[in-house]
Amino acid sequence: MASTLIFDEYELTMSQAFWRVGLTGPVAFELVLRSLPRHYGYAVTAGLADVLDFLTEFSVSGPDLDALRAAGRFDPRFLDHCADIRFTGDVDAIAEGTPVGAGTPLLRVTAPRIEASLAEGALLAIVSHQTAVATRARRIVDAAAGRPVSDFSLRRLPGVGSARATARAAWIGGVSATATTSAGLDLGIATTGTMAHHYVLAHGPASEQEAFAAFLREFPERAVLLVDTYDPAVGVARAIAASRATGVALQGIRLDSGDLDVESRRARELLDRAGMTQTQIVATNDLTEDRVAALVAAGAPIDAFGVGTALATSAAVPALSAVYKLVAQRTAAGWEAVMKHSAGKRNDPGRHQVFRQDATSDILGLADEDLPGQTLLEPVMRAGQVLAGRPTLDAARTRCAASVAQLPDEIRRPRATRVLHVRPSARLVTLTRALRRAAQST
Amino acid sequence: MASTLIFDEYELTMSQAFWRVGLTGPVAFELVLRSLPRHYGYAVTAGLADVLDFLTEFSVSGPDLDALRAAGRFDPRFLDHCADIRFTGDVDAIAEGTPVGAGTPLLRVTAPRIEASLAEGALLAIVSHQTAVATRARRIVDAAAGRPVSDFSLRRLPGVGSARATARAAWIGGVSATATTSAGLDLGIATTGTMAHHYVLAHGPASEQEAFAAFLREFPERAVLLVDTYDPAVGVARAIAASRATGVALQGIRLDSGDLDVESRRARELLDRAGMTQTQIVATNDLTEDRVAALVAAGAPIDAFGVGTALATSAAVPALSAVYKLVAQRTAAGWEAVMKHSAGKRNDPGRHQVFRQDATSDILGLADEDLPGQTLLEPVMRAGQVLAGRPTLDAARTRCAASVAQLPDEIRRPRATRVLHVRPSARLVTLTRALRRAAQST
Repeated sequence: MASTLIFDEYELTMSQAFWRVGLTGPVAFELVLRSLPRHYGYAVTAGLADVLDFLTEFSVSGPDLDALRAAGRFDPRFLDHCADIRFTGDVDAIAEGTPVGAGTPLLRVTAPRIEASLAEGALLAIVSHQTAVATRARRIVDAAAGRPVSDFSLRRLPGVGSARATARAAWIGGVSATATTSAGLDLGIATTGTMAHHYVLAHGPASEQEAFAAFLREFPERAVLLVDTYDPAVGVARAIAASRATGVALQGIRLDSGDLDVESRRARELLDRAGMTQTQIVATNDLTEDRVAALVAAGAPIDAFGVGTALATSAAVPALSAVYKLVAQRTAAGWEAVMKHSAGKRNDPGRHQVFRQDATSDILGLADEDLPGQTLLEPVMRAGQVLAGRPTLDAARTRCAASVAQLPDEIRRPRATRVLHVRPSARLVTLTRALRRAAQST
Repeated sequence: MASTLIFDEYELTMSQAFWRVGLTGPVAFELVLRSLPRHYGYAVTAGLADVLDFLTEFSVSGPDLDALRAAGRFDPRFLDHCADIRFTGDVDAIAEGTPVGAGTPLLRVTAPRIEASLAEGALLAIVSHQTAVATRARRIVDAAAGRPVSDFSLRRLPGVGSARATARAAWIGGVSATATTSAGLDLGIATTGTMAHHYVLAHGPASEQEAFAAFLREFPERAVLLVDTYDPAVGVARAIAASRATGVALQGIRLDSGDLDVESRRARELLDRAGMTQTQIVATNDLTEDRVAALVAAGAPIDAFGVGTALATSAAVPALSAVYKLVAQRTAAGWEAVMKHSAGKRNDPGRHQVFRQDATSDILGLADEDLPGQTLLEPVMRAGQVLAGRPTLDAARTRCAASVAQLPDEIRRPRATRVLHVRPSARLVTLTRALRRAAQST
């Protein structure tokens, strides 16, 4: 982490106020996906591994603390206290790669109040982003119906700082490779990449075939040529000629403009006529899950997709409505459930457990309830230490693919007509009503 | 930078191919804002300072290069060559904080081909993100019509890696403060932050007034209280009572839910009735430029806004359509303009200059043209060295405010009915036609 002060300033003002009056005992916050985006039947959890790294390294220290002291906005004795803060709490979380519905707590932090508070901004940013990317990736991969999808999102990311996290979440969602070299090497996942238009342009308009031949000689194992720098039909003919001239089998051609349905049929015909029936057609150019699904439904002969913008962001769903909310605090009498009452915002009080009934329905109960079904929130950190046996990135990816495969098409499709359903337990309903009454009577 | 391999893998495959055949001479790439988002009358440039930092530090080295060698995908002799690569080129750019129209080159990189290629992904990610954030910030600040707007975006960012860049760009766009402590200290810009709902909840539903009083005693200079944890009207009454009990003047109250127009009027009345006519009303809760403009137009008595999601991202405009394209390459005969012809993608060949005619219209000409108007692209880096006299962050912010103030309302408003107009010079039109003919004849 570049800085150790990655939080909203109000966490620090609140923390100083808590410190002053000794309101520093254990509390429980849950990071909740409040609602599903429109047209989404589910979301795919991701980001937990980075949350655990963040909490393990968490401190307010060094030059950052000096800068904070110099700013003079906080009590120096409180900042002395901050210097000693490490994350000493517990985390329970739903495994990465799990499909979930609206109202689901993705993780719970149980920790001394100041530690739990200071983590808010970073945890929301990490989990919201990766969950959004993993969900988008899974929806696009699903729409591609078995055709591989590559992550070409680097240039559409908000700065280079999110390259690794985006590639990671897209991998959980099921993409086949990333174009981001650093992320691929760091995460140990497949990378992909052959050429851009400027490679072809470098050789001049009269030399497209020569450019292709040089590339095939250089990278016979990556023989995918971008054919639409000038005219795609001419480009395909030159790709075929370059393959014959070099003796390197043409693995694929890539189309990055125009009507991809029309162009892919035209390219397929040219390739087949040349006997290159094994040569694949790769399509890119602002593809979304809707466009991928439409191309597949139309029967466009496209064998693989590359997706950038629609992984990095989404016009339909620019941000997930995730919140990090105080759900309980420990008093002399034990754990006490809490709930805010702000208009129009759903809030489930208390510490929760998610009981999965089957692939498509969950019960949101209280953590100490004993309900049927698989419990999704499981211990992952205790007293600041990550528990052994954390699943690998590939395990999350496998879980995602297997779990989503169990969902019916109405939940999976880009414009879902049904959602993964989450209903509250009877005890949670009772507790919510009791707290509402209590607040109204004060 | 966490890694030195922040590029799309195809840059490396192309670079090896370029290296093999000696296509390594000087080229010019321009980073172009292809179109304006729908309803936008202009965009505000941002990110240049981070681009220059990136290029200054650029290298492919250390453990990253070892990992790349181990991966075995590239020629070891080419990777040896990569180890020596630093950015030795030139950058010409439009100053940060400048309003621009569609088709504008925001910066030009003139460098040996491999250096210029490897920078593509990072430069696009940096400039697209910061330009999008600065533009959104300016539009929201404009909609607020003089009322301060604070940046509350941290939790909505795609991971913590973009916190600094987002705060920076939002500052250029004109926000009054950031809630992200690290960014505020690092950039030397104002920070803001008082309390969240969980601060009030910590004290229990019967003790909202006590929570407020404790905060006022702790931070009399930050006396802004969040009043809607339970019931906003009750919250305002308790805020007034806490102010009287502590003798600390109530600077403001914050509303974060419900109908902000209705609630702000109710709060204003309560405050005025208590004689607290100077107490400000701060509004937050998923505000966009449209909602801010509507609240201002309705005459809601709101004195300041806090904006998060709409700064971090945008439903209307999730990503700017920026491209980094090869525009010219140096041959034995001198600089040669190049252009790709992919269907549906506007491409202006050659190295350009933007000649500003007045606040609302530019001519996009060739770099060696001598046209009237202020030239916007100016030298900022030569032979890998940043030129002295770079403007400060505050200079960019001042430029933005002053330049946008010169635009008519039809260009500035959230749903613009007119755009900052960019028209090509006669020579550029002639060159584009000539290159189109040349490509068709090959």
